[in-house]
Amino acid sequence: MSDKKTLYCVIMAGGVGTRFWPESRQSKPKQFLDICDTGKSFIRMTFERFAHLVPKENFLVVTNARYKSLVLEHIPELTEQQVLCEPIGRNTAPCICYASYHLRNIDPEATMIVTPADHLILNEAEFHTIVGDTLDFVESNNALMTIGITPSRPETGYGYIQKSDNATISRVKCFTEKPNLELAQLFVQSGEFFWNSGIFVWKVKDIIAAVAEHLPEHHALFDAIADKLGTEAEAEAIAQVFSECRAISIDYGVMEKADNVYVRCGDFGWSDVGTWGSLYQLSRKDKYANVKPSEGCYTYNTRSSIVSLPKGKVAVINGLRDYIVVDTDDVLLICPRAEEQNIKKYIDEVKYNNGDKHI
Amino acid sequence: MSDKKTLYCVIMAGGVGTRFWPESRQSKPKQFLDICDTGKSFIRMTFERFAHLVPKENFLVVTNARYKSLVLEHIPELTEQQVLCEPIGRNTAPCICYASYHLRNIDPEATMIVTPADHLILNEAEFHTIVGDTLDFVESNNALMTIGITPSRPETGYGYIQKSDNATISRVKCFTEKPNLELAQLFVQSGEFFWNSGIFVWKVKDIIAAVAEHLPEHHALFDAIADKLGTEAEAEAIAQVFSECRAISIDYGVMEKADNVYVRCGDFGWSDVGTWGSLYQLSRKDKYANVKPSEGCYTYNTRSSIVSLPKGKVAVINGLRDYIVVDTDDVLLICPRAEEQNIKKYIDEVKYNNGDKHI
Repeated sequence: MSDKKTLYCVIMAGGVGTRFWPESRQSKPKQFLDICDTGKSFIRMTFERFAHLVPKENFLVVTNARYKSLVLEHIPELTEQQVLCEPIGRNTAPCICYASYHLRNIDPEATMIVTPADHLILNEAEFHTIVGDTLDFVESNNALMTIGITPSRPETGYGYIQKSDNATISRVKCFTEKPNLELAQLFVQSGEFFWNSGIFVWKVKDIIAAVAEHLPEHHALFDAIADKLGTEAEAEAIAQVFSECRAISIDYGVMEKADNVYVRCGDFGWSDVGTWGSLYQLSRKDKYANVKPSEGCYTYNTRSSIVSLPKGKVAVINGLRDYIVVDTDDVLLICPRAEEQNIKKYIDEVKYNNGDKHI
Repeated sequence: MSDKKTLYCVIMAGGVGTRFWPESRQSKPKQFLDICDTGKSFIRMTFERFAHLVPKENFLVVTNARYKSLVLEHIPELTEQQVLCEPIGRNTAPCICYASYHLRNIDPEATMIVTPADHLILNEAEFHTIVGDTLDFVESNNALMTIGITPSRPETGYGYIQKSDNATISRVKCFTEKPNLELAQLFVQSGEFFWNSGIFVWKVKDIIAAVAEHLPEHHALFDAIADKLGTEAEAEAIAQVFSECRAISIDYGVMEKADNVYVRCGDFGWSDVGTWGSLYQLSRKDKYANVKPSEGCYTYNTRSSIVSLPKGKVAVINGLRDYIVVDTDDVLLICPRAEEQNIKKYIDEVKYNNGDKHI
């Protein structure tokens, strides 16, 4: 495994998810919430998941400038310098470039783990074994490693990774974004396809070489300002670069094109907890298949529903089946689970009439 | 009409209604709420309804001791001495006795109007005509007057008054409490039966004479302490009387038994607004038959429902039909309109588990 001193963890925390509205807000997106009621926010769980592997001074969080203080509030172990602020979101490739070129200044031999800030991992022991394998592998190979997840269902909302063989660490044959249901079913049956976790492990110099080759415009922009990173000129330089660089995902921009991409697959209780529906699936249900706070929520003739309440609030709910009920201090949402894709539409309407206040 | 100086208005405001829970609370029952969103509480509307007839110093409010400050907050025109505090609720007869024996000390020739604090009257002009008729009548007759309401439906939750003839002011033939539906339908068809509004008009000396005759125990108790009313010994004396006297309604204890009971009937847009369902019936509906706040409440595929929200709160509601949704700062209620009679059961369960805090 890598020398700890050269091992860094980059947490990507720039998301502005709206699918958990009204629980998630522009001012407090999902990564800062304790949606699963574990007592810890997603970003806090993400930090703790890697904190025994990576010294706390070797974490970087890349986020939107407006969330900087929230990041420091959730991970008080970090210094301000460890929070890299994007002026605008440009998808994952610019985010990872920012962190990578920044790290190259600190340690050109650095190994980095890149992870989303807002996923759930239930089996951390298994996950750590897998991460350990990937760290060992990138130590001795110029490899861009990704972590794949054994699919438990033909999910059409995820990206898939096809392995080329049955080795523990296998070269990636191809990436496929959000397949239709028929294709997703074939993927799951084949045993060759795995969900793309969005977690990556590589040496800084290897990802930068790959960016230089496959995203030369991005390389040129970031390389040109590299000497300003970590200085007082950083914010202005980054503002310029982000205004010029193309929004593109690292998967599409680099991973699908590079030929040194490998995957380590496993089954470690992963979920991206992307919607109220996925939280419902994931959560412990009562005998009527309801997911609800353990105290203060009284349900009658109510089945297969998920209820979220502010702390200390009492709810009496009669006669709902397959519903989402989310109550917050200033917004109440009552919606059939089957219609959660409409939440975006509701947000637009509330925003149009009431402004940003409740969004 | 009576000389204004001898005319008094007694507002009975001791109710601890729970059917509007969670909007109504033990700490703030219905009479202090603006359920109809008129900008004024029921008790305030009641005061204003009589304020042009009765000088403000001639009002008395009888309420539970715990609501004294709420009464003064809603009717700042009153002095503390005008709020008579019952130590415990004993139904309307002891409440009316308290006010009557108190008034006899002030003015033995007083005429009094007695009114519940929590009813709605839409046609105040018509109501004032009716009240004027009753005042004229009791001026020249030893009469216990009640006001009846032309029934608009065979309501089984109200008491009915049968008139003995078609005169504007008619002797009462009988009182009937909450009939079954079949009987209620016959009542409405007959044209002889009217809803009992619980509003009474009489001379103080006449009601006291009737109490002496029909509720002699109550008379004995109140008459014995009459000289203490309006003095420092009042509270203790009243505590003793209320602990000893039987709980009984004025209808059952006096009106059904006396032979000088008269009714003036009319149609003045009266409602006791007793439940969420009656508020729904009474309220202006949108084109989908929903009753909801004019701002901030977004309904989709939702029909014939009533929604109440705290000021400034946004709600998105999809897929409810015939529901009651009441959100308050600390309690959320979602219940089919057809099951509102269960609200009492819900309160009991919340109280059992969470204590009095949310009740």
